Amino acid sequence: MPRPSPILAHAIENPCAIIRSLGVLTDTWSFLLVREALLGARTFAQFRDALGIASDVLTARLASLVEHGVMVKTPYRVPGQRTRDAYDLTPAGEELKTVLVAMQQWGHTHVPQEPELRVVPLTTEGRQRVHAELVDPAGRTVAPEAVQFVRTASRPAPVDG
Amino acid sequence: MPRPSPILAHAIENPCAIIRSLGVLTDTWSFLLVREALLGARTFAQFRDALGIASDVLTARLASLVEHGVMVKTPYRVPGQRTRDAYDLTPAGEELKTVLVAMQQWGHTHVPQEPELRVVPLTTEGRQRVHAELVDPAGRTVAPEAVQFVRTASRPAPVDG
Repeated sequence: MPRPSPILAHAIENPCAIIRSLGVLTDTWSFLLVREALLGARTFAQFRDALGIASDVLTARLASLVEHGVMVKTPYRVPGQRTRDAYDLTPAGEELKTVLVAMQQWGHTHVPQEPELRVVPLTTEGRQRVHAELVDPAGRTVAPEAVQFVRTASRPAPVDG
Repeated sequence: MPRPSPILAHAIENPCAIIRSLGVLTDTWSFLLVREALLGARTFAQFRDALGIASDVLTARLASLVEHGVMVKTPYRVPGQRTRDAYDLTPAGEELKTVLVAMQQWGHTHVPQEPELRVVPLTTEGRQRVHAELVDPAGRTVAPEAVQFVRTASRPAPVDG
């Protein structure tokens, strides 16, 4: 069980799950590191070169993502060089795809820009474009305007499952 | 067309649509203001009392969300008092539901906490719980591990469009 860093502790212990997610994805760099990992970056140099991020910031952000279980470190060694760490997404990190796709399509639709560099989410088999959608228990997509947020008791009633 | 504030201009002009979304949702308060609006808050006092946010920060964040087209201001007047502004989500603001639901379920699953205050997204008709999912063009949900991010040319080929 990773221990939250002091800076993140407040956010991580928040009763709102949105804030707890933001306690892990603390800034734009965190989102971009996950994006680059999803695009195939694994090494410190690959993240640094792709994003132009300062080395000390990159070190801190990668450590935080490892600490919160979004990435795991794997030692690797190029012959003749010292052992280094590669960073791979955990299953929890992979599940951030839904968050990133939702943010990407919102920005694409509501803060449009042409031409833009495109990172497109595709099914691995069939290479079909996917979107983030709200889906009901029967698997049907539901338009945002047909969804409302409701505050419930902190402990759901037994009938709720 | 709202003009981005100088602070946000860099983020808004970024070729990455994820960063452009983060240029609108600049911090935790922005996410929480949208959450409270989805729960029914409309007035300055309602947002302030629900979140315990400092008045100057609230003023700035509401102005930014209005500027970026997430909320609109509507004057209202309680008899005997001065005219005030109410803040309502635009259709673009409503579409942030998918982002918030995706972040909420990620935090709920991967940064669990018991007991927690719950804000639950339900269908307006039928009150069924909805989830954020990745969906293919045929409307089928796709597991995150079956989706890959792919960099494309900035201008899609005609066959794509």
